[in-house]
Amino acid sequence: MIKVGVIGATGYGGAELVRLLAFHPAAKVVAATSRSYIGRSYSEVFENFRHEEELVLQEENINAIAKQCDVVFIALPHGVASQKVTEEILNCTRIIDFGADFRLKDPDVYEKWYGVAHHSKHLIDRAVYGLCEIYRDDIRKARLIANPGCYTTAGILALQPLVKEGVIDPAEIIIDAVSGVSGAGRGLDLGLHYDEANENVKAYKVGTHRHTPELEEHLSRASGKSVVLTFTPHMAPMNRGILITAYSKMTRACSYEDIQEIYQKQYGREYFIRLTKKGVSPETKWVKASNFCDIGFHIDERTGRLIVISALDNLVKGAAGQAVQNMNLLFGLEERAGLDMAPVFPA
Amino acid sequence: MIKVGVIGATGYGGAELVRLLAFHPAAKVVAATSRSYIGRSYSEVFENFRHEEELVLQEENINAIAKQCDVVFIALPHGVASQKVTEEILNCTRIIDFGADFRLKDPDVYEKWYGVAHHSKHLIDRAVYGLCEIYRDDIRKARLIANPGCYTTAGILALQPLVKEGVIDPAEIIIDAVSGVSGAGRGLDLGLHYDEANENVKAYKVGTHRHTPELEEHLSRASGKSVVLTFTPHMAPMNRGILITAYSKMTRACSYEDIQEIYQKQYGREYFIRLTKKGVSPETKWVKASNFCDIGFHIDERTGRLIVISALDNLVKGAAGQAVQNMNLLFGLEERAGLDMAPVFPA
Amino acid sequence: MIKVGVIGATGYGGAELVRLLAFHPAAKVVAATSRSYIGRSYSEVFENFRHEEELVLQEENINAIAKQCDVVFIALPHGVASQKVTEEILNCTRIIDFGADFRLKDPDVYEKWYGVAHHSKHLIDRAVYGLCEIYRDDIRKARLIANPGCYTTAGILALQPLVKEGVIDPAEIIIDAVSGVSGAGRGLDLGLHYDEANENVKAYKVGTHRHTPELEEHLSRASGKSVVLTFTPHMAPMNRGILITAYSKMTRACSYEDIQEIYQKQYGREYFIRLTKKGVSPETKWVKASNFCDIGFHIDERTGRLIVISALDNLVKGAAGQAVQNMNLLFGLEERAGLDMAPVFPA
Amino acid sequence: MIKVGVIGATGYGGAELVRLLAFHPAAKVVAATSRSYIGRSYSEVFENFRHEEELVLQEENINAIAKQCDVVFIALPHGVASQKVTEEILNCTRIIDFGADFRLKDPDVYEKWYGVAHHSKHLIDRAVYGLCEIYRDDIRKARLIANPGCYTTAGILALQPLVKEGVIDPAEIIIDAVSGVSGAGRGLDLGLHYDEANENVKAYKVGTHRHTPELEEHLSRASGKSVVLTFTPHMAPMNRGILITAYSKMTRACSYEDIQEIYQKQYGREYFIRLTKKGVSPETKWVKASNFCDIGFHIDERTGRLIVISALDNLVKGAAGQAVQNMNLLFGLEERAGLDMAPVFPA
Repeated sequence: MIKVGVIGATGYGGAELVRLLAFHPAAKVVAATSRSYIGRSYSEVFENFRHEEELVLQEENINAIAKQCDVVFIALPHGVASQKVTEEILNCTRIIDFGADFRLKDPDVYEKWYGVAHHSKHLIDRAVYGLCEIYRDDIRKARLIANPGCYTTAGILALQPLVKEGVIDPAEIIIDAVSGVSGAGRGLDLGLHYDEANENVKAYKVGTHRHTPELEEHLSRASGKSVVLTFTPHMAPMNRGILITAYSKMTRACSYEDIQEIYQKQYGREYFIRLTKKGVSPETKWVKASNFCDIGFHIDERTGRLIVISALDNLVKGAAGQAVQNMNLLFGLEERAGLDMAPVFPA
Repeated sequence: MIKVGVIGATGYGGAELVRLLAFHPAAKVVAATSRSYIGRSYSEVFENFRHEEELVLQEENINAIAKQCDVVFIALPHGVASQKVTEEILNCTRIIDFGADFRLKDPDVYEKWYGVAHHSKHLIDRAVYGLCEIYRDDIRKARLIANPGCYTTAGILALQPLVKEGVIDPAEIIIDAVSGVSGAGRGLDLGLHYDEANENVKAYKVGTHRHTPELEEHLSRASGKSVVLTFTPHMAPMNRGILITAYSKMTRACSYEDIQEIYQKQYGREYFIRLTKKGVSPETKWVKASNFCDIGFHIDERTGRLIVISALDNLVKGAAGQAVQNMNLLFGLEERAGLDMAPVFPA
Repeated sequence: MIKVGVIGATGYGGAELVRLLAFHPAAKVVAATSRSYIGRSYSEVFENFRHEEELVLQEENINAIAKQCDVVFIALPHGVASQKVTEEILNCTRIIDFGADFRLKDPDVYEKWYGVAHHSKHLIDRAVYGLCEIYRDDIRKARLIANPGCYTTAGILALQPLVKEGVIDPAEIIIDAVSGVSGAGRGLDLGLHYDEANENVKAYKVGTHRHTPELEEHLSRASGKSVVLTFTPHMAPMNRGILITAYSKMTRACSYEDIQEIYQKQYGREYFIRLTKKGVSPETKWVKASNFCDIGFHIDERTGRLIVISALDNLVKGAAGQAVQNMNLLFGLEERAGLDMAPVFPA
Repeated sequence: MIKVGVIGATGYGGAELVRLLAFHPAAKVVAATSRSYIGRSYSEVFENFRHEEELVLQEENINAIAKQCDVVFIALPHGVASQKVTEEILNCTRIIDFGADFRLKDPDVYEKWYGVAHHSKHLIDRAVYGLCEIYRDDIRKARLIANPGCYTTAGILALQPLVKEGVIDPAEIIIDAVSGVSGAGRGLDLGLHYDEANENVKAYKVGTHRHTPELEEHLSRASGKSVVLTFTPHMAPMNRGILITAYSKMTRACSYEDIQEIYQKQYGREYFIRLTKKGVSPETKWVKASNFCDIGFHIDERTGRLIVISALDNLVKGAAGQAVQNMNLLFGLEERAGLDMAPVFPA
């Protein structure tokens, strides 16, 4: 059994990870930490685990946990991992970080968008961006995985094959996204109070959301050109789910089948990416509580635009599920291990 | 008292109209029709009217109702009004049509997008597009008002000042929209079944929604150039509300204050348009059950794009409220009559 | 114009009061206080008021406000009014208190259920319980009104006629209730965080909710016997609405018409109480954003039980609307003034 | 592999069954029928199965399917199974019926509550009521299983130990229940239209719901006395979940620990029943998408009542999950096979 540590097990991302690992055939959580619930049983905090009484939350001692575990997941906000992870830790365990600290290759870009100093610039080169379908080979060899953001996963998976093939203009990309509320986490905030979020749709962080440079970096890498794009996230009244509607301009006349072939070529053998049939648009309900990312597209002939839509569950493929997929790659397991489940509908 | 007839009083748009008129100081519904509930009391069908027992639903005899009423609202799907409205009817009453039949000036465009024949092409010229803030003077003199679509109202109000002033490129407009479920009406449909629509976000009619030519016609009129744009509607799990996120390219460098001045100039004296303060983005909850349209914007300096966000209640400013506003203009009443209410929050 | 002060204008109850008064024909809010938002414009805090820029939130100086106002509403949690209200204040203004401090006649019962000392026992006798349909005559003469709780209003209105007439056994009453989330207020709490309250139903404070003694006091008064009952509140994922399902045992065989007559006799002329037709059960959606309380009942012949169901909007008839109704009575206004509105549907 | 047939695979209950069986270690769906979607791939109808293209929906030929399968689930409304199931079919396969036809031992009671004739009275004796925790031994030997109703499962599991031990008065039971909307099925209906069900709570079928005699039969069996009770279901705006609040009178003074011991004795070794700790009340969110039934209780000393609360997922423990649990018993498998999953939260 792979021994797993979870730093930050009581946020939504961490809790989803604990849930997925509880039924993983080859891994077991042996240590889980929390800041607010130290010493309490996990099942008291998350009563869906009422049948699992053993796991007790401990202090955030990453060094001790690293020694005990084959892999440690850090499910904490940005700014923490870069202070906690050291060469020493990486020598004794593998790290999969849910935060943003090791996602961007350029620490200046990080510091500009996140407004904090980066404390481990020397480790950035050792980090691999954990988008399994794109960087699988590098992930297999890594000790430090930067697990991608939820919006970013949906956005890059949707657009990467197109920019790579050059069929869309990398200078004309707009990504419009809608997320369920769990993406904002479990911390109390007036905007997340039930009556404020319910029966409401809003855009937020318009033009300033921190997933923007992450989207740009990986699309630039695929494109070979510098991608600067517009990204607008929205919040909709549901627990889970992200829907991306990405607008781009085609660089040449393409038929539906041409584009389909591009996706087929890159994703045809990917279990977790499901291409929808012509005329079928992805919906968040069809991926809920699963690790799938559904992708569909529409050619708007009137305007020469290509509209790509992707859907995923922000807590699974957008966080904990992808993290488990990364773990499976790291340890040479079947990539689907512990993730083999149909979306729950209606849920 | 203005005597009002409502053709199609048992859809959501018609019902909202009856609700607004129930407390209008100068108008009274004297006839209301339905296809499914003929002979039944209105309060049996909509129990929120349980305190109003008098109104009984009658057959859809528009000729008879026209003779009885000072104004007749037709709250039926497209394709009906063009078959029912005649010169004769327009001679004895005023018509405010919630459907699309008289919204587009070019019947070929109508027939192409709606896929049905237009039966009253000779009346198209008599129709005035009922977007009060933009065509107020023409509305005052009209006998036939084409009440705008819900998405269209939000989209045109958001962008019209900008295309009129030429600060955005009319060839580069993308309108991304999210609507609550009531926009799809009261007719049964699997996609509107509670468990299918709840906890789900989806795009629909991507690139093909019928509000597209309506948006284009009125933005073209303001721009002086032919606007061809991309419009993508989404459905989110809430009863009411539309949020538009409109993307455009600026034709010249503008500051926040420049754009603000353009809006201020056109909408500064409009009661029902509320411009948000810098940094505040409209949200559907702040306009619910009211006739307001809130507008805010963000300049994305990295990409040279201007992002405008507008929010309204699809059943009020997007349908019945705007219809009442049109009626008020037609009869020389105070434009706010019957519409003077704060949004309900939380609702 | 009646000059109104609102102490605690930024909770949900206070905000609903400000909304209702904004369109009241004979009253105007001249002072509004807040603890968290002193000095800020009301429309910044509640953007649904974006069209109303004048109202600025001030400190909670009740003595100064009392001198300025004809009536002061205290929309604060229990324990505050009994510390703030004095003889002096009551000599210069009228008080309508949303809290529980003056609802119970016996201060020992208050102190037992609320766990705090009562600081104005000498004023309890001056207070009138503001359930308009039952204590109308007393309310007209009062200076200090204890506005009833939301569950209590629904429960007492449902059962009072039955216990008064002696057709149900006062020793066998069970009140089961479901409330929307706004009943719990605007204060942050993990249980009210969107993802925790959404897609969830729970009972809470089982057997210990503080509205219990309030229900018992007023049903006892009507019955002439001491009523001790079981009350269980539940929370359901919606913004507004309370549904009461009250179980009781009939003391004698009664037909549907017998019971109907009892309700008709007591409520036949009440505008804000709507008795449903036989076979129609009240639903919260039919009263949303209105001051109505709908009541229906079912005789369960198999068990000899009478099941009464009532529905109201917890923020209107359950709080701010009833408070306005009380104000109207205090000042000899039309009881419906400012409350003349149909429920909003769908909302 | 156990070969499974599913009659009625496109309702919510049938679809949940297909989902659970898709990952069952020892069973495989080899035939699935539908009335509306014959010949179509399952993944077209339920796009959450987009990764599973093989299953094609066929006609409802139960005789042919019975020959092919080791067990056939009938996920159709009441009235169908009693017409379709024959001795011959039971000789060649096992039947697990989601409908009500074989749940009640007295066909007169069935015909009275369901208003239709029972077509297979001779088979009633062969049927075993599939409430695994109570009738496990009988289930193991059965050929025909009547899978319990959703409300009934929650209600009987909550109260059976108490009536069996005689600590509550079987003549004084009231069961108040709240269900999510999926309990009403996938068939279109105005009451299940999104905008009608959303933001609404209502009681329905007050005193007349068909789960009443089922609750009474099994509680009577446990009690040894004839139980006649009041049952009131409510609908709340969420996809899944049932919460039961059951009121009863204690026959003798019992402490919390006394009652706890009774539950512990009967359910202490049951994996799928989780007793909550003192002061913790079950909530539907903690069992979502799982086969657990959570039970908690409160002694209301003021009234001598015992209030028991239970929560389950109506589509899992209330339908498909329990059906799989029954199948596992029938075939001597591990009872948790295919059901070993933590509730999904937040979902």
